[in-house]
Amino acid sequence: MIKVDIAIIGTGTAGMGAYKAAIKHTDSIALIEESKYGTTCARVGCMPSKLLIAAADAIHHAQSLEPFGAKIDGKIIIDGVKVMHRIRSERDRFVGFVLETVKDFNPKHLYQSKAHFINKNTLQLSDGQKIQAKSIIIATGSRTFIPKEFDKLESLVITNDNIFDLDTLPKSVAVVGPGVIGLELGQALHRLNVKTTIFGRGGRVGFLTAPTLKSLTKKILSKELNLQHSSTIKNMKVVPSGVEIEYLDNSGNPQKETFEKVLVTTGRIPNTDKIQIENTGIQLDNKSRPIFDSHTMQCSNSNIFIAGDANNELTILHEASDEGRIAGTNAALYPNIRNKFRRSKLSIAFCNPQLAIIAESYDNLIKNKVNFVTGVVSFKGQGRSRVMLVNQGELHVFFDKTSHLFLGAEMIGPRAEHLAHLLAWSHQSKLTIDKMLQMPFYHPVIEEGLKTALNDARMKL
Amino acid sequence: MIKVDIAIIGTGTAGMGAYKAAIKHTDSIALIEESKYGTTCARVGCMPSKLLIAAADAIHHAQSLEPFGAKIDGKIIIDGVKVMHRIRSERDRFVGFVLETVKDFNPKHLYQSKAHFINKNTLQLSDGQKIQAKSIIIATGSRTFIPKEFDKLESLVITNDNIFDLDTLPKSVAVVGPGVIGLELGQALHRLNVKTTIFGRGGRVGFLTAPTLKSLTKKILSKELNLQHSSTIKNMKVVPSGVEIEYLDNSGNPQKETFEKVLVTTGRIPNTDKIQIENTGIQLDNKSRPIFDSHTMQCSNSNIFIAGDANNELTILHEASDEGRIAGTNAALYPNIRNKFRRSKLSIAFCNPQLAIIAESYDNLIKNKVNFVTGVVSFKGQGRSRVMLVNQGELHVFFDKTSHLFLGAEMIGPRAEHLAHLLAWSHQSKLTIDKMLQMPFYHPVIEEGLKTALNDARMKL
Repeated sequence: MIKVDIAIIGTGTAGMGAYKAAIKHTDSIALIEESKYGTTCARVGCMPSKLLIAAADAIHHAQSLEPFGAKIDGKIIIDGVKVMHRIRSERDRFVGFVLETVKDFNPKHLYQSKAHFINKNTLQLSDGQKIQAKSIIIATGSRTFIPKEFDKLESLVITNDNIFDLDTLPKSVAVVGPGVIGLELGQALHRLNVKTTIFGRGGRVGFLTAPTLKSLTKKILSKELNLQHSSTIKNMKVVPSGVEIEYLDNSGNPQKETFEKVLVTTGRIPNTDKIQIENTGIQLDNKSRPIFDSHTMQCSNSNIFIAGDANNELTILHEASDEGRIAGTNAALYPNIRNKFRRSKLSIAFCNPQLAIIAESYDNLIKNKVNFVTGVVSFKGQGRSRVMLVNQGELHVFFDKTSHLFLGAEMIGPRAEHLAHLLAWSHQSKLTIDKMLQMPFYHPVIEEGLKTALNDARMKL
Repeated sequence: MIKVDIAIIGTGTAGMGAYKAAIKHTDSIALIEESKYGTTCARVGCMPSKLLIAAADAIHHAQSLEPFGAKIDGKIIIDGVKVMHRIRSERDRFVGFVLETVKDFNPKHLYQSKAHFINKNTLQLSDGQKIQAKSIIIATGSRTFIPKEFDKLESLVITNDNIFDLDTLPKSVAVVGPGVIGLELGQALHRLNVKTTIFGRGGRVGFLTAPTLKSLTKKILSKELNLQHSSTIKNMKVVPSGVEIEYLDNSGNPQKETFEKVLVTTGRIPNTDKIQIENTGIQLDNKSRPIFDSHTMQCSNSNIFIAGDANNELTILHEASDEGRIAGTNAALYPNIRNKFRRSKLSIAFCNPQLAIIAESYDNLIKNKVNFVTGVVSFKGQGRSRVMLVNQGELHVFFDKTSHLFLGAEMIGPRAEHLAHLLAWSHQSKLTIDKMLQMPFYHPVIEEGLKTALNDARMKL
């Protein structure tokens, strides 16, 4: 039996954050990795998808010169092998940085093995060893969820876990699931001349929650993409040229299309189902996932902490990193754990136009019966957006009717990733609408659109 | 003799701002315009230059597909007539909005005439009328300064005042003066296939003040542009094909080039030299320009106020607008004037990569003997910048060694306009470095470069 102060299961973003925090308190650590080092983010998530999008957007913009007074006499040739090669070589560079970090870890802390709980203090490793730990951190991450009906398509099914390993771009792809990953990858593939149909059910597209923004998202993206957001897949079968999909389209009409690949982006599920979590005695929810405190990362007042995608809450890199650090610190301090400061929330989808939710979503405000007003700007006539021909979308900003504090925002529109930071920082700084309107807005910038939304909210207060 | 409470000379951004503020206090106003309504910004400044840049950048990006794995089989055809047509038609739309605003002004307040001071309370109009006013606001704007040696080139000289009225793009342009306007227009023309040489003296390029950023600006822009920043123009003469310029280049070697047009961007001077300002008795500086208080816009405790480009201080639209409002309010309240809140300073140049100074510049901090540290990030290896192939430039952030307050920043790099807003808002919110590092940074975003600079500064504190 190996005895340590802290055992950490998983070495992704959360696990590495936990390790770096824990090492400040103790040298008695077991850091357990069952597979390859390197993070979801760098390997198959944020970085490679942004590389695919960068290529796609460059080509899209090159195809959009006419309104500026120029045109391409000839055509754009996309070399799928080169596109994928750049993505992989840059991706490997980012993964390399992660591996460099792991190299700095003390090798005697590292265990290359699967692990599951025997009880709340003991882990069974697949190599036969047992580890007894005062505190244990679950940082096992998440994996792509593939519904059973896709099993029969075998290798014709791809996910974000292996799409970046394709040698070249497929000729055609059915994207199943119009969430963030589906939209980002689906639109990028479309812009790279891959024939793409994006399938969804019930009309849900992206993650915005305000009703007008939900329908605006559908409207804007449908102009460019074959977005079957309210479809029903009736049958899928393997044919010589790929997968034939029979479906009812948005209007309920039967359609039949064949695709070289089927990209499943129906969601990710936390890896908490293979570690015999039930042996810990901690409280689980109705999906057998640990209940935890998002300020301490602690599960049920126990010695067990959970961080990153594994807790299925804010499955976003910077949150995973923060959660890892909090879990690492509290695992070391246990049982004298501390409530840790959490940053204002921020979610961004890098489709085009981008989507963002800052702090409280519309749905959350409604659910919590908050008394708020919404300031709105359409980017259609917004000066600089129009100059750059990116004048699509809307920003909604939410303010408390009593305190006039900024509560949150939702947006589909140009440069949302930057406006989202400005708004998230404003939220964390607890700014009121008057303080925000006193801030500098240069001219001509897209931030002036935010000013219009603020003025709209001001009038309603 | 017409008697009013407030006379406003000029109806640009500052004059209109002053009018809107003054009208809340009195209906006794004379708003005097000697020429056309509409602002420098909309007519010949911010908006048309951004339109030219938008076209230029679109074409530049289309020419930069190869590293992403694509290429153009054929060529990009730039239709100069169409490019200029879009700029003018959008420009006229923006000017139209300004004219709409003027339509809302009370016509009995409007005087279409030149004006000059008889004394501190009296204006002589060129149509023979005299206006006596309790308070007078100088909002006469600025004009392009053309050094005498260009006079002989006559109509071959263009400025930002008339370049947007050209029917098509010239074949070649000598740009004289590598300040903001020269860089913005010069680079845009270059990207629109206009053969362009940018002339400067003494190596000054753009407006950054930190020594390493000054040389980095030169280095980065020289990669793309024929930037003769340390040249000496020996002779200019009109030849059949345009203007022949003999000059010593950056290395002191004699060169001779011929250009279709010479774009003079050597600076703008305030229009305070034709209003007989000396008749007011207010204090003037050594260039005969009024000395004023930048929080009240008041000149020498007098009944005279000065706002916008006319005061030659922050010749930027949003500042002109603020100054106009402050001057309008204080002119109405005179002699009981108020100190008005000014926003944190912000200057942006929309060349590529963009330049920005936020709050205090490096030079100002040195001049004021502030005890500060500088946090630095290079965008060369910055994740997202590299993904999008915009990984050039540096950001320097300045923090007070004692209070750890954010003092200011200078930057050349990607998306500087957005980082500049985040930083200016942080400055106005009086954030310390620890508060800034607690803010959310998404992944992968260019804002993470700022985080690197902050961490660098943190280590030095």
